Amino acid sequence: MAAELTAHQLIDRHRPTLDQALETIRTRAYWSPHPEHPKAYGENGSLDTAAGKAAFDALLGTRLDLGQPGTDDWVGGEVSPYGVELGVTYPHADVDVLLPAMRAGQKAWRDAGPELRAMVCLEILKRISDRTMEFAQAVMHTSGQAFMMAFQAGGPHAQDRGLEAVAYAYAEQVRTPDTAEWTKPQGKRDPLALTKRFTPVPRGIGLVIGCNTFPTWNGYPGLFASLATGNAVLVKPHPRAVLPLALTVQAARAVLAEAGFDPNLVALATERPGEGIAKTLATRPEIRIIDYTGSTSFGDWLEANARQAQVFTEKAGVNTVIVESTDDYQGMLSNLAFSLSLYSGQMCTTPQNLLIPREGIRTDQGAKSYDEVTADLARAVDGLLGDDARANALLGAIVNPDVKARLEAAAGLGEVALASREVTNPDFPDAVVRTPVIVKLDGAKPDDEAAYTSECFGPVSFAVAVDSADHAVRLLRHSIREKGAMTVGAYTNDTQVEEAVREVCLEEAAQLSLNLTGGVYVNQTAAFSDFHGSGGNPAANAALCDGAFVANRFRVVEVRREA
Amino acid sequence: MAAELTAHQLIDRHRPTLDQALETIRTRAYWSPHPEHPKAYGENGSLDTAAGKAAFDALLGTRLDLGQPGTDDWVGGEVSPYGVELGVTYPHADVDVLLPAMRAGQKAWRDAGPELRAMVCLEILKRISDRTMEFAQAVMHTSGQAFMMAFQAGGPHAQDRGLEAVAYAYAEQVRTPDTAEWTKPQGKRDPLALTKRFTPVPRGIGLVIGCNTFPTWNGYPGLFASLATGNAVLVKPHPRAVLPLALTVQAARAVLAEAGFDPNLVALATERPGEGIAKTLATRPEIRIIDYTGSTSFGDWLEANARQAQVFTEKAGVNTVIVESTDDYQGMLSNLAFSLSLYSGQMCTTPQNLLIPREGIRTDQGAKSYDEVTADLARAVDGLLGDDARANALLGAIVNPDVKARLEAAAGLGEVALASREVTNPDFPDAVVRTPVIVKLDGAKPDDEAAYTSECFGPVSFAVAVDSADHAVRLLRHSIREKGAMTVGAYTNDTQVEEAVREVCLEEAAQLSLNLTGGVYVNQTAAFSDFHGSGGNPAANAALCDGAFVANRFRVVEVRREA
Repeated sequence: MAAELTAHQLIDRHRPTLDQALETIRTRAYWSPHPEHPKAYGENGSLDTAAGKAAFDALLGTRLDLGQPGTDDWVGGEVSPYGVELGVTYPHADVDVLLPAMRAGQKAWRDAGPELRAMVCLEILKRISDRTMEFAQAVMHTSGQAFMMAFQAGGPHAQDRGLEAVAYAYAEQVRTPDTAEWTKPQGKRDPLALTKRFTPVPRGIGLVIGCNTFPTWNGYPGLFASLATGNAVLVKPHPRAVLPLALTVQAARAVLAEAGFDPNLVALATERPGEGIAKTLATRPEIRIIDYTGSTSFGDWLEANARQAQVFTEKAGVNTVIVESTDDYQGMLSNLAFSLSLYSGQMCTTPQNLLIPREGIRTDQGAKSYDEVTADLARAVDGLLGDDARANALLGAIVNPDVKARLEAAAGLGEVALASREVTNPDFPDAVVRTPVIVKLDGAKPDDEAAYTSECFGPVSFAVAVDSADHAVRLLRHSIREKGAMTVGAYTNDTQVEEAVREVCLEEAAQLSLNLTGGVYVNQTAAFSDFHGSGGNPAANAALCDGAFVANRFRVVEVRREA
Repeated sequence: MAAELTAHQLIDRHRPTLDQALETIRTRAYWSPHPEHPKAYGENGSLDTAAGKAAFDALLGTRLDLGQPGTDDWVGGEVSPYGVELGVTYPHADVDVLLPAMRAGQKAWRDAGPELRAMVCLEILKRISDRTMEFAQAVMHTSGQAFMMAFQAGGPHAQDRGLEAVAYAYAEQVRTPDTAEWTKPQGKRDPLALTKRFTPVPRGIGLVIGCNTFPTWNGYPGLFASLATGNAVLVKPHPRAVLPLALTVQAARAVLAEAGFDPNLVALATERPGEGIAKTLATRPEIRIIDYTGSTSFGDWLEANARQAQVFTEKAGVNTVIVESTDDYQGMLSNLAFSLSLYSGQMCTTPQNLLIPREGIRTDQGAKSYDEVTADLARAVDGLLGDDARANALLGAIVNPDVKARLEAAAGLGEVALASREVTNPDFPDAVVRTPVIVKLDGAKPDDEAAYTSECFGPVSFAVAVDSADHAVRLLRHSIREKGAMTVGAYTNDTQVEEAVREVCLEEAAQLSLNLTGGVYVNQTAAFSDFHGSGGNPAANAALCDGAFVANRFRVVEVRREA
C-alpha cells in the first residue's frame, strides 16, 4: 500500500518547525508553535472550543476501538473529578499477542531514519494540536484541572514538551553522520581507507506509564523521545486518566498508517480494576525503555526491578520556597498565592514548605514578622480565591480521595493560618473543590519536622518558622538531598543569602526561581527553555528535556568495510 | 596561590586541538594529534624511546608518593608478564579521609566551566603524551603487550580515546547556553521576561575501575569524561596493572595544581592483595559514576548493586566472524591470522568463533572446503608467527595464569587445527609467550555448543562448521543476544548474506566489519571515528564514545529571575 503521506510532503510541512525547535533548544529563548489562546483554534482544520466539547461529548459512553491486535476485552471506568462518568471503554490487551505485533514494524521504522521519524512525530503532534479543544475536555475530566489549565497545560504546553523531545532525539541521532570516509596515512605505503556507515537503532519497545494529574504533559516527552529514536511505544495510562492518552495513541496510529508504517508501533495498554499491569509490563524483556511519572515508591521499584530497561522517572519531592526579604512584598504575596492555588496544589512543582525567619523579614513595606507574613499570605490567597467563579477557574477539582484526605488531615498538624474552604462549582455540583490550607510549623521543633519533611501532595502548605536564613538554607539542603525537589524558590535581596541558596541548588541539583513577583510562577516551566526537574536529586532521575533524556534510547551500529 | 598555568595560556595552547576533535567526532574522518611512530617522540619536551625506558627503570623499586591525603600504607606487588618484579609501591588510602578530601575542590572545578575544564584535561593528556615512551614500558610490563603495541595502544590511541571523551563532554555541556533571555508576548500587556542562567553541575566522584590488559586505553574515556564534566575522579587500577594509571593520576594531579585547582580532584586507590576494595568503593554514597572494564560477573554485580551511581561497563562478549565467501582469499587469511595473533588474542575485540559452512566457501582461488579453510588459516597464522622475533613482537606475553590455563584446556575441546606453541623471548626468558590455538568444532553438535557459546578470553579460536550461511546468521544472532559481542566480522560477496548479517547486527546492536583483507583489523577501533562496543548488547552497556557516555555525568541547574 502506498503511503498517503509521503516523506516529501511531511518534510515540506514540518521541517521548518523542527529547525525552529532545534534552534530554540540552543538559545532557550521563548518560542512555541502551539497557541495558548482558545481563539486561535477553529481555523485550518482545528476544532474550536465548542467543537472540541462536542467531540468529547460524542466519545462518552462509547468503545474506543483502536484496532489493536491481541485485544481480548474492553475495559474502562473513568469518573471525572467533576462527577461525570465517562463510560468510555478501551482495548484490554493480551500482551503475548500485542508485544510481538508491536515489533513487526520496527525494521521499517528504524530504516526510515531520524528525519522522517521526526516528521511523522510532528504530524502526530499536529493532529493532536488540531484536536486540542477535545483533549482539553479529556484532560479536564480525568485530571480535575480547570478548563483553561487543562486546555493550556494538557494542550499546547504538552505538545511543546513532545516537540522538544523530538528535537532532542533528532539532534542526538544526527550527531553521527550516516557515512564517513576514513583515510589514514601510512607514510610511503598506500593509506588505509575505510567506508563506514552509521545507523541509529532502537532499543526495543518503550513503555510510558502515565499519571493521573498531567497525562499528556508528563506522557508526551517519553512517548515522543522513544518513538523518534526508532522504538515502538506502549502507553499504559493511569486508570483514572486513560482518555487523553488513548486519544493520543489513536492519533499516532492513524498518522503512522497514513505514512506507510505499521500502526502497531504505538499501542495502548489498559487494565481492569486492581490488575496492576504496570509491574508485569515493566519487567517484560521486550520493554527496553520506561518513562514513568508518579509515586516515589513505584518509581523506586521500577528503578530497582526493571533492570532490562532504561528507566526514566519523575517521582515526588518536597518543594521549598525560602522567604527572607523582598523589594516587592505585594508582588511576592500575589505570586505565591497563585502558585499555592493553581490546580489546588496538585502539581509536582507546587511549593510545600515556605521557610520564613521567626524574627520576620525585610520588605519594601517595612519589617514584617513571621506571623504577619503568614497572615498576609493567607489574605492574599483568600483574595485571589474570594470569588467562587475565579476560585473554580484556578483550583479545578480535587483529583482523588487521597488528596482530599491529606488536605483534611493537614489542619491537625499545627496552627492553621489559612483554613481550606469548600467551593461550589455551579456547572459540576459533584466536583470536590477546595481552597488550600496553610499550616504554621516550627522548624526548630522536632515534632513538626515529620510533617514538613514528608511530601504532602495537594493543596497543603507549611509556613515553617526558621531561626535564620542560614537555618533555612540548611533545611533546604537537607530536604533536597533526602526527599528531592522539582522546584526551589527564594525571595531575598541579600546577595549573600542568594548566593547561599544558589550554591545549595547547584550542589544538590535543584532548579531555582528567584524573586518571582510577576506573571511567571515557580511551579511552571516552559518547554525549549526551562528544564523540568534536574535528574540529579531524588525527585526525578531525568530532566525534561536534555541530551541524557534521549541519548540512551537508541544505539549507533557501525558497518565498516574497505573503501 | 596564583596559578602557574592561566586559563588564557591553556586556551591558547589547546583550544585548536579541542576544536579539531569536535569537528572530527562530527565527520568521523581520520585524525589524531598523538603520533604513533616512535620517531616522533624525543622533541618538544617528549621523551624518546631510550629516555622513556630510563624513566621507567628509575621508577622500579621506588615508592610513588602522590601526596594524597589519608594515605595509611604503601602497597604494590606488580610482576611483569615478562618476568620483571616492578617493586613500585603506591599509596593505600583511608577512604574516609580521601573521599571527603576529593570533594573539597569540586566547587572551584565546577565553577571553572566546561571550556577551562576541557583545557586542563588536554594539558593532562599533553603531559601524558610527552611521557608516552615511559607509559609504553609501564603498559608493556603490566599488560604483557609487546612493546610496539604497548606504545601505540597504551600511548597515542589511549590518549586519543581520552581526548575524544573530553570533546564529547565539552560538546554536551555547551549545548545549553550559559544564559538566556526569555521574553513571552502577552498580547497588549507587557511581555513576561526572565533571565535564566544554566550551570552544568557534577554528580560527585567518579570511580574508574581499571583492567589488566588495557589500563590506559580502557581507563581514559571514563576518567576524562567524568573529570571534564566537573566530577572528581578516583582511579582504582587492577592490582596487576597499577603503574600506568598511577602515572596518569600523577600527571593529572600535577596539572590540576599548576592550574590552580585542588590536586585531590584526581586520586588513586590501590589495595592490598585480596582486599577487594572495588565493591566497597563502588557502593560508597560519594561515588556517583562508575566506569568499569573487566569480567561480566563483576560488571553485572556493579550494575545491580551500585545503585547510587551511573554505571558504565565494558564486560565480555563472544566475538564472531562469519566466513561465507571472499574475493581475496589470501587477504582474508592474512587479516584473520593477524587478528587472532595480536596480543595473543587477549583483547575484548578478538574474534573467537569463526563460522564456516561445512560444505566450504567460494573464493577467488576456487571453492575451499571447511577443512581447507581451517588448514589454510592455521598455515597463515603459522606463517605470520614462524619467525620468533616477529612472533614476540606480535604476541606479547600471556597476561596471567588464567589465560594460560584456558589456552591449555582448549586443545581438549575438539580437533586441533592449529596447536599452540611456546615461543622463547630472548630478552625476557621468564615471559610466557604462546601462539594461538585453533580448535575445530561442529555447530550442529550440542556437545560443542557449550564451548563456542562461552567466552574463552585469550589465544583460543574455534573454527565452527555450520550447515549454511543461514545457520551462521542464526548462531550469530543467538550469540550476540545471549553473550554479547564487542565486534562482529563477516566475509561474503553474496549481497543477501551480507544483508542478513547486517540486519542481525542492527537488530542486536553489534559493530560489524565487512570483508577486511588489508591493514585494518576487526579487533581495532580508531577514536573519533569508530565506536568501541555498542552499549546495546550484553558485552557492554556503553559505547566509546557517544553522547550517552557523557550526558548523564553532569546535570544542568537553572537559576531564573525576572529580567
